Order: sequence, then C-alpha cells, then structure tokens
Amino acid sequence: MFDPKQNVLVVSGHAADYVWRAGGTIAKYLKHGAQVKVVVLSLGVRGESNDLWNKPNQTYETVAAIRKSESLEAASKLGITDIEFWDYEDYYMALDDEAKLNRMAALIRTFRPHHIITHGDLDLLNPDHDAVNAFVFKASVLAISNGVPIEGTKTSTQTRIFGFEPHQSEICNFKPEVIIDISETMEMKVAAMHCFKAQSHLIEYYTQKACMRGNHARRLSGNKTYAYAEAFTRRFPYVGEWLV
Amino acid sequence: MFDPKQNVLVVSGHAADYVWRAGGTIAKYLKHGAQVKVVVLSLGVRGESNDLWNKPNQTYETVAAIRKSESLEAASKLGITDIEFWDYEDYYMALDDEAKLNRMAALIRTFRPHHIITHGDLDLLNPDHDAVNAFVFKASVLAISNGVPIEGTKTSTQTRIFGFEPHQSEICNFKPEVIIDISETMEMKVAAMHCFKAQSHLIEYYTQKACMRGNHARRLSGNKTYAYAEAFTRRFPYVGEWLV
Amino acid sequence: MFDPKQNVLVVSGHAADYVWRAGGTIAKYLKHGAQVKVVVLSLGVRGESNDLWNKPNQTYETVAAIRKSESLEAASKLGITDIEFWDYEDYYMALDDEAKLNRMAALIRTFRPHHIITHGDLDLLNPDHDAVNAFVFKASVLAISNGVPIEGTKTSTQTRIFGFEPHQSEICNFKPEVIIDISETMEMKVAAMHCFKAQSHLIEYYTQKACMRGNHARRLSGNKTYAYAEAFTRRFPYVGEWLV
Amino acid sequence: MFDPKQNVLVVSGHAADYVWRAGGTIAKYLKHGAQVKVVVLSLGVRGESNDLWNKPNQTYETVAAIRKSESLEAASKLGITDIEFWDYEDYYMALDDEAKLNRMAALIRTFRPHHIITHGDLDLLNPDHDAVNAFVFKASVLAISNGVPIEGTKTSTQTRIFGFEPHQSEICNFKPEVIIDISETMEMKVAAMHCFKAQSHLIEYYTQKACMRGNHARRLSGNKTYAYAEAFTRRFPYVGEWLV
Amino acid sequence: MFDPKQNVLVVSGHAADYVWRAGGTIAKYLKHGAQVKVVVLSLGVRGESNDLWNKPNQTYETVAAIRKSESLEAASKLGITDIEFWDYEDYYMALDDEAKLNRMAALIRTFRPHHIITHGDLDLLNPDHDAVNAFVFKASVLAISNGVPIEGTKTSTQTRIFGFEPHQSEICNFKPEVIIDISETMEMKVAAMHCFKAQSHLIEYYTQKACMRGNHARRLSGNKTYAYAEAFTRRFPYVGEWLV
Amino acid sequence: MFDPKQNVLVVSGHAADYVWRAGGTIAKYLKHGAQVKVVVLSLGVRGESNDLWNKPNQTYETVAAIRKSESLEAASKLGITDIEFWDYEDYYMALDDEAKLNRMAALIRTFRPHHIITHGDLDLLNPDHDAVNAFVFKASVLAISNGVPIEGTKTSTQTRIFGFEPHQSEICNFKPEVIIDISETMEMKVAAMHCFKAQSHLIEYYTQKACMRGNHARRLSGNKTYAYAEAFTRRFPYVGEWLV
Repeated sequence: MFDPKQNVLVVSGHAADYVWRAGGTIAKYLKHGAQVKVVVLSLGVRGESNDLWNKPNQTYETVAAIRKSESLEAASKLGITDIEFWDYEDYYMALDDEAKLNRMAALIRTFRPHHIITHGDLDLLNPDHDAVNAFVFKASVLAISNGVPIEGTKTSTQTRIFGFEPHQSEICNFKPEVIIDISETMEMKVAAMHCFKAQSHLIEYYTQKACMRGNHARRLSGNKTYAYAEAFTRRFPYVGEWLV
Repeated sequence: MFDPKQNVLVVSGHAADYVWRAGGTIAKYLKHGAQVKVVVLSLGVRGESNDLWNKPNQTYETVAAIRKSESLEAASKLGITDIEFWDYEDYYMALDDEAKLNRMAALIRTFRPHHIITHGDLDLLNPDHDAVNAFVFKASVLAISNGVPIEGTKTSTQTRIFGFEPHQSEICNFKPEVIIDISETMEMKVAAMHCFKAQSHLIEYYTQKACMRGNHARRLSGNKTYAYAEAFTRRFPYVGEWLV
Repeated sequence: MFDPKQNVLVVSGHAADYVWRAGGTIAKYLKHGAQVKVVVLSLGVRGESNDLWNKPNQTYETVAAIRKSESLEAASKLGITDIEFWDYEDYYMALDDEAKLNRMAALIRTFRPHHIITHGDLDLLNPDHDAVNAFVFKASVLAISNGVPIEGTKTSTQTRIFGFEPHQSEICNFKPEVIIDISETMEMKVAAMHCFKAQSHLIEYYTQKACMRGNHARRLSGNKTYAYAEAFTRRFPYVGEWLV
Repeated sequence: MFDPKQNVLVVSGHAADYVWRAGGTIAKYLKHGAQVKVVVLSLGVRGESNDLWNKPNQTYETVAAIRKSESLEAASKLGITDIEFWDYEDYYMALDDEAKLNRMAALIRTFRPHHIITHGDLDLLNPDHDAVNAFVFKASVLAISNGVPIEGTKTSTQTRIFGFEPHQSEICNFKPEVIIDISETMEMKVAAMHCFKAQSHLIEYYTQKACMRGNHARRLSGNKTYAYAEAFTRRFPYVGEWLV
Repeated sequence: MFDPKQNVLVVSGHAADYVWRAGGTIAKYLKHGAQVKVVVLSLGVRGESNDLWNKPNQTYETVAAIRKSESLEAASKLGITDIEFWDYEDYYMALDDEAKLNRMAALIRTFRPHHIITHGDLDLLNPDHDAVNAFVFKASVLAISNGVPIEGTKTSTQTRIFGFEPHQSEICNFKPEVIIDISETMEMKVAAMHCFKAQSHLIEYYTQKACMRGNHARRLSGNKTYAYAEAFTRRFPYVGEWLV
Repeated sequence: MFDPKQNVLVVSGHAADYVWRAGGTIAKYLKHGAQVKVVVLSLGVRGESNDLWNKPNQTYETVAAIRKSESLEAASKLGITDIEFWDYEDYYMALDDEAKLNRMAALIRTFRPHHIITHGDLDLLNPDHDAVNAFVFKASVLAISNGVPIEGTKTSTQTRIFGFEPHQSEICNFKPEVIIDISETMEMKVAAMHCFKAQSHLIEYYTQKACMRGNHARRLSGNKTYAYAEAFTRRFPYVGEWLV
C-alpha cells in the first residue's frame, strides 16, 4: 500500500527539533524506502544548548561542534543519510531575507518533496520556531511560482505542509490533525534522542508524549496495535480520492 | 488501492441533505464496491419544502409523500439501494430522547460503519442540523460502550465521523479538513439533484460549489484531473500509518 | 501562607474522574487541612466500565457495586472522608431537570465551597462530561440567587469554578490556566489510581500526564522542585489583590 | 434618510434587560416613528431581583408585581407603548418546548419585524440569556418556513437578528459588530434605568458603558457628536447595496 | 439614498486582485457617481502570471507590460479612470519600510477616502496578501496622526477598512461581514475579468462565487433581486445612527 | 501575606501607556514595598500626542519635552522613582533589531523581575503596541538562555508576563485573565492621569474602565470592597502550589 517513491523534506529550526518531534515518522519513511532530506537551519547554539553553556569558558565553536556531532549521530540512528546544516544563527533567527528564501525555494525545487514537515504556526515559548514556520511557507510559495527564476531550478508543484507538535502543546493552540503510528520505529527514536547529551531531560518527556499519542491513536482508531505515535497539524486540508 | 470492504453510514437530517452535501462521495463509494447505508431522519416536510407549501390546500401527508418519492428517486440515481426513512418530525427536531438514541446506537452496532458522514457541528441557519450532529455523536458513544446493553447488538468500535459542509460555509465557521474528488460521479450527483422539484434553485448552487471545491482541490494538490469535489470536516484527527 | 479554612467541592461525572484529573490536588488540600467534599454523580456503570462488562453474564448491579467500592478505596488513599454517590445513570446523562439542579444548588449553599472543581467545558469524546459542566454551572447560579428558595438553605456567594483537564486535551481546545504542583501527593494519587482495576491502562497514562505537566510547570515557573502537576481551566478570570 | 416604516421586535429575558442593553436604541427608533414591540419573557423574579429578596417574608407575587410595575414605568420613559409580559419562570428558563416556540414564531409572523434584538450567543454568567438566544433563533426559523402551520399566521421572511452586549463583555467573547449612537436618547435611557429600584447599582455601570461605547464610536467613525452608544452583535452578515 | 460624494480607495496587491474580489462593487460606486482610486502595488509578475511564464524566453519586462496593459483594460471595463501602478516587486513583497509607508499614508491624506478596500487579514496561500493588509493598516494609522509630518499633507480622519474575500475563503477563516449586491454591474465585472488572459481559469470561478454570494444574500435578506454579490470583512465594527 | 521582595518590570510603548493601563497596580506594588522599574520605549511624540500638534509651529523637540515631563510627573504621583526613557521613535516602531533586543534582555538579566507587565498580544488600532509585545517576549527569551552572552549579565530565569488591557478591549479579543483590585491606589492613579494634558479626554474613560472592572471584580469574587480594578492577560498559565 505504501509507495516508496516519496520525497519527504524535514526543516528543523535547531539541531534536535526533528528528532523530538518527528524522529519516529522520519525513521518509518526511510525504513520503507522513501527519500528523506533533513535541513537543520541552526545548531541551536545560543538557544537550545543551556546545559553545555554551564561549563566554564565554553565557546560558541565548541558548542556548535558538539551539537552538530550529536545531530549527525542521531540522524544515523534514524537511518538518515541526507542531512544539511545551514548554520544560521539562532535566538533570534532572522530568516526574512531574499537570499535565504531563495536558497530554501531552490532546495524545494530540486528535491521536489511530496511532504514538508516543519514547525507549526505557534510556539508560545520559542520565537525561532514561529520564524521557521513562516520561512518555509514563504519559500514554498516562491518554489511553485513560474515567475520566480532561480538559477538551475524549475518550478515545482504544491506540496503538503505538516506542522510539528510544540513542546507545550495546549498553550500553543496545537490541535492534532494527523496522528502517525510510530510503534515500529520507536526504538530508533529513543536511540536517536539519547544522542543529545545536553538535553537528556527531554528523552523521558518525549517518550511519554509518544505513549500518550499512542493512547489517543488507539482510542480514536480502535486499532490496538498503535503503541507509540507522533502528532502533526496540516497547513491545508487533505485533498484526495477517498475519505481518510 | 481502494478497499471495497468498507461500510459507510450517512445520516441526513432531511430528505435531500445527503444529496446536496455528499451525493458525489456516496456514489463514488458505491461504484467502487463499498456498502453505503443512508438514514433520513425526517422528510423535511415542515422546514425544507417551502415551494411545495405554496400550493393551496397542501397537506403534510402529500408533502411527505412527494419528498419521500423524490428522495428515493435521487437515491437510485446515486446507486443507493439501502436507505431508511425514520420519519421524525422536523422544525424543530427533538432527538434527545433515549429511544431515538438507542435506535441509532443499535444501527451503528449492527451496520458497523467504518465512516459516518452527517451534519457538522454548526449551521447558523438551521437548528435541525445542529441537533442531528449532537444526536449522531451521542449515539456513536453509546454504541462503543460495553455497558450499554441494547437487545440484539454487540458493542462496536470507534468510527470516523465526518461533517457535511453547511449551506453558507463561511458564516458557520466551516473549515474544510477533507476534500474529496467526485469528478467521476458528478454526473450522477447532478441527476440526483434534479429529482428535488421543490428545491430546483439549489441545483445550480451545489453544482457551482462542486466546481469551486474542485478548483481548491487542484490548487492544493497539484492534481489537474480534479474537476469537482465535496468538502467535509473531521470530528477527530486522522490516525494512521502514514502522512495523508 | 496556606489557609486551611477552605472548602473545596469536587463534582465528578463518574466514579473515577476525580482521581485521574484532580487526585493530587485533592490530596494536597486535605493534607494541609482544607475541607474537601467529593460528589460522584454516577458510577459510570454504562460508559466507563468497559473491562468489567467483558465478563460473561455481567449485571448492572455487580458493576455498580465494584465501581463504588473501588471509588471509596481510592478516596481513602487520597485522604477523602466526605464523599457522596448520587447514583444517576450515565451514558447519556440527563441532568437538566429541576430536582437535580436544586439538589446541587442546595449542596453548594450548605457546603459553601471556596473552590469548585469539575469537568471543563468541552470533552469531544464524552458527552456526559459536557453535561456535568453545564449542570454544575447552572446549579451554582441558582445557589447565589436570593430569589431561588430551597428549603433549609440560604443564598451563597460566587465561587471559583475550575475545569478538569480532559483525556485528549488538545482536540478539546483545552488550554491550561492553572497548573498545580502535586509532587508531595503524587504517591497518594498513584495509590488511588491503582484501585480502579477495570481502567488499569489509565494509570500509566495519568502518571505520564502528571510528569509532563511537571515539566511544563518547571519551565514556566523556573521552580525546579515541581516534579508532578495537574492542570485546570478557570471559568472566570482570577480576581484579587496581587498579580499571581 | 430614516424610514419610519420599520418594525423592531425586542425580546428580553428578564424585566430590565431591554433597558440596560438596548434602551437608547429602542427610544431612538420610537422617537423617529418606528414600531417597536418588546416581549419580556420572565420578570426575573428568581434570578434578577436579589435586593428585593433581602426584605424579610418577601413573596414571589410581591416581587413579580414590583418588577412588572418597574418595567412598565421604564418602558414609558423610553416611549414604549407595546410591551408584553409572558411571565415564564426564570432561573433556570426552560424554553425548548413546542408551545413556547410556536407562540414566539406566531408573534414574529404577525408583527413581522425588520430587526429582532435579543440576547447574544454567550453569557458566561447567566444561563437564562443563552436559553433566550437559542429560543428566539429557533422561533425565527419556524416563522419563515411555509411548512410550519400556525393558526392565524402566514409565513414571514428572514429578519436581521442582533445580540445584546452582555454584562461582562470580554469574558463572554463579545465583539461589537454594530455600535449605535444613542446621544439623542441617552437622557431617556437614564430615566428608564432609574425605575429599577432593586438594581440601582447598575445605573452608573450602564451609564459608563454608554460613555465608553461613545468613545469607541468617535474613535472608529471620526464623528465627534457621538457621545453615547450601545453595541450589538449581528447573527448574520450585513447584506445590502452599499458598503456600510 | 446613495451619496455620490464618497471617495473609495482600493489597494490591490497585484494587477488583478481588485477585479476578482471587488470589481462589481467598484463599478457600482463609479456608476452612481463616487470617486474611486485604485492603487496596484505590484504587477504580480513573479507570483501571479504563471501562464505567461510558460512561454519560452519570457522576460520580466514583457510580463510586466502585458499585466499592466490587461489591468488598464480591465479598469476601463469597470469605469475606473483613476488607477496608479506602484510597481513594487512581488513574491515576496517587502513593504515594511518607511518610504513605502509614508507614500501610502500621504496618498490617504490627500485622497481622503471614506472607505478603503484591500486584502483581508489572512490568506493562507498567499503571503503577499497578508503583507498588503498589514501595510495598508499601518499607513492608515500614520495618516491620522497629527504628529507624523509628511510634506504637503494634512492629517486625515479614521476611515473604514474592508477586507477582500480570499480565494479559498474557508481555510482562511474568512467570515463575511458585509455582502454587497452587484447585480447591476456583474456584466461589467465579467467583461473586466476577461481582460486577464493568463488567468482565464479564474473567470468561471469568480462568476460562480458571485452567484453563490448572491444566493447567500437572498437567503439572508429576503430580497429576491440580489442575483450576484461580493463579500467583505470589516476591520472595525460598524458605527452609526441606526441598525444596519 | 504580600512579599515586598518582588521586582516588577513595566514596559510601556509610549509615555502614558503604563499610567492608563496599569497605574493603579504599579502604585499598589510600590506602596507595599516592591521594587518597580518602568521603561518607556518612546515618548509617543508622533502617534500619541495629537492635541499637542494642533498648536501652530509645533516641533518634535517641544512635544518630546512636554511628554517626558508629564510622564515624569505622573510617575511621581504613582510613587515611581525608577523610570527610564529609551527615546525610540514611534509610529511606526521598529524594534526588531539585535541591539534593542539585547538592551532589553540585559535589563531583564540585571533587574531580574518576578513579573513583567507590558502590552498584550493584539491591539487592532495601534501597531506599535503589537510591536512592543513581540519585542518584550523575544528579549525575555534571550534573557533566560545560557548561550546568549551579553556583557556584564548572567542568565535569568523565566518570569511571568502580563498583558495590558487595550483601549477598545472587545475588538482586540481581550479576555481578562487576572483582575487586580486597585481601590487603595485609585486616587493616585487619577492624579497621575491628570498629568497628561494632551490626553485629558482619556481620564474619564479610564476612570470609568476602573469602575467597570471593579464591578466585574465584585461579581466574580463576591468581595464587596473591590471598588476599582485593572485587568490583564497572562501570557502563560499560572503555575503554583494552590488553586488561585
């Protein structure tokens, strides 16, 4: 039933976002043969590496190196081979410039994703995540417009855009629209989460969240085999041939 | 890809609602081999037969007979063979009693639908539609509860519940969550709509709505073959194995 | 700082709701000397005892007896000594009659709670919970009105009304407005949850939820000692002397 | 510019609601020649006469007589000559029965209002007001339906329905959609408000509210002559020939 | 009844937006003697000229010339004689700079519109439209402030601001607040729409939309002569002397 | 009960905002011994000094001097001794640059407020207020992040952020979450408001608003001594030990 000829683009604001929020789904797509490309816009050196900065005389470069190495290791645990680090600065991310928008639009045109997974439209605690959401949407609009010439690319077509679940879902008005069973890759996700030494307190948290989404998934679907799940929003309604 | 072993239950507040709002989708499911059962809760004699009442000395019985005959004819144009008329009074529908709730719960338990399609949660112009929405939801909850004994039935499992698009979508806070291509059955829907002599002004309206939803479907999916479509809400998030 | 001269009224739709959703908070109030009264409107025989009904030849009376006994045991684990069972039927709860409204209003007038804790205003999966929310609010309005005579009572004053967190928070538009640290009573809550044999799958779920709310509480307050927490909505804004 | 051939129906849940919330607008319509009919569904004996009940040995009959007499006096201060008291019981109002719905529908059919002004769709503090909102809407739907025979009436056409501003606007999600200048009748409104002896604390409150709405009206329109105003919601969008 | 001494300012993000979304209303105002000025911020060369770019070796200049010529021709079909092209770049529009804000504020101060019609506050598919909405609002605030000196202008007063209906209304949370009958100018609108050769697929779409809004207008007003209509949002509530 | 060891940071977009919207609360905190620092980002010369500009040959410098002097005088009426004027330009405020963000973050790190009070998240009439809301939030995020080095500061911890009530509350979706009794400092607030000569029309307005909030406060709390109050939103849920 699953068509392996699918490209999935994941855009992660910081080095670990794609793991906590979509690691199980990414691993599942890869395991079944899809192409997944992950773009990490920043390493989260300033905003998402609090523990590393507790070390005396810590430097930006050292933190950056640690974060990149952890993110690469996590990626490999998930089976990801195609990952790019764009090394933008975080906290506060300024993404609203033409060069950055064109770079992302060009990537969309060349990779031609069927699905884009990135941050959703409100994170009440993290302004970077909101900036990434707007950035990816604007770039996706440039990508599908014939009149926007970008060297070496040709116009792509509309893709689906899914939003990550934020850390504190409820105060961010997060409402799940798609809940994906990740039981078969939960173990990989756990392994990937363990790569982030500076954020070890999040491992239990996201394990529990996957459990809780699994509980919701069973209740809503009646399918008892759904043990772990991840939730997403959809930017646009589902369009298709049959009720899903 | 389509599994014909699917049961679809459609609950229509009045005699024609299922045609205007879901006729194309129903016909498509039937054409591909699914089981579809339509329950018409009332004939809409009081509230949705304005033109018929313009005839002098009109009676409830005559209007009821005309409406039922038109609804049956429309059903046959859509390929529907399983349709029930429960003959409740409309305007204002009082559905909050135990006997009616149990009757619907029993039907859900015996028909065991994979999908239920009925009125959505707000129709700012028609209080009957809101009453039907609440009624079907409550009955679906009774149906899945082991502790609710109903003679001759056994507990069913959670089903998906989809909401019809109301007549004036925007003032009813309607936001499409699922848009279904009905190009291959649009002709059948048009034929079915023509059966309702007292509501002929709605035929053009719902033909245009199908066009407009087709336009949205093309824009959002990139699939140029989607000429006509119908839109629905989902009561619950989608739960499944893959992004849809 | 804590004033032990406080009355807290908890109204629980079914036999276990008050434990999953507010058990830690109740135990904490009791431990520090407040008066807490719990009213269980129904035993949840029909709607919240699925596992018990899996036993062949199960009867309403047996399930009711088991549920009441479990609820009493859980209450004692939380330190609750004042608990009433009103034995209304559940699924579907019909609470909109004068006698029931007056009974609750009379209780509010005699117990004179400073806080009422009950179901919040939307549970997309459980229509009983919504009925309880409306019922308690209406009764609280009768209770404070001089013109509503109820034998043996005198008019009370406005109380605060807090809403439980529903099971699937996000799809119910739940947004935490008050998060209460329950670290010192979490052990009691766990013991209480273990009393419900037919809902054992919920124990892990609500343990995780308490963890997750603890995580949110730490992040939002900066207080590292908050290990477990429960979240609530407020029906009305906070009114007081100082920013809280 | 003002067409005096207009009928305005005001439906007030209790004896004084129409004065606090729409008194200036009513007086203005009357002053300019429109027909205004006020229906007072209940006298608010139980729920809106707290001060009167402070008198020892107070009775329902005495309170009812006082409220009716005050309401009549207030009506005369506003220039109202057509006022009906339906004497339903309040707190809690049960309006969902066929006889009451038909009575209101019949009145709509015979009076044939161009505008209906009644309670809006959420009053977080007063469940009666919500009940009235639903009641008037349902009756208005019956009134326009050919198939709903009511002795001695003929079907009417769709009217505009406006919602009163509730007492605590902001917590009731009230958002003004129409703000009406009442500068020329403010004095009459003040006189009318003074008739309600048991609610004298509200006079200053609603005088200030009229000032504040006047301030908003000036700021939004640029018209400096708007000293006092009343705000309303609209159930349906404005439909017309020109932007307003 | 209609006062021809009215100035209407229309701000259109791209070359054709004002035609699809407000062409009938503009033509009607002009036909009855109002002054209408249209400002086209960009020609939509990059983002709204997809078909033109399908021609090999297409250039920005050629597309710009075609779009401007079509827009001028459409304007003349609507009776517009006062139209300005500001030639900003689109996709992605950067309007948040002082010179542009001052230019628009100066125009508002000199033209002194009674109504401004522009893009509404959310278009989920087109970030340019959202940028225009924010731009016009900010400029309108500068225009009415005494303390903002702009050479050759004097402070203006608050105007009404109306929002266009976006292409996919429902997913953009669009809720009609004003629906305007355009039956008498629908023919002109159709003629104007036909000028845009690269967007011919939109002509049928917006014809149907006008039909559908006409249907809504008839249903909500009871006026059977409303055949075609356009819908708008209002940024602020209506403020005036009488209920509208 | 009140702990005087509290730091409160107030960030005011213009010279008088902190007085109208939080003057009573500020005075109360000071009177009871808390440390309050007020930062005035701009003097509101361009956007909030309309009356001053009516004088012929008025200059930016004169208006700025008057506004600063009035603001200082008002501050002293409230008991404020710690006030900073950052003298940014208003209308339109551009705050999204690194230097400004770092300056505010540094201040948060050194003053270490327990509460921040600033503009809420939507003011439909004043784009500067929205800009300030976003600015303060972003700076607060930088302040608590270990990885954001700012000379001479050390990372602070999460604080509570409260939002001012905007001028036209209801159209700005303002919903009070915290209502603070200011009866004991209302006189000081009135004195402070009288310092702003160019905005004298606002004094009555905000006096009435304080009355109205006092009315709400009494109704919601049952405390009859609350005569005047101010309302705020909370950016985050309350987190604490007990229900409040």
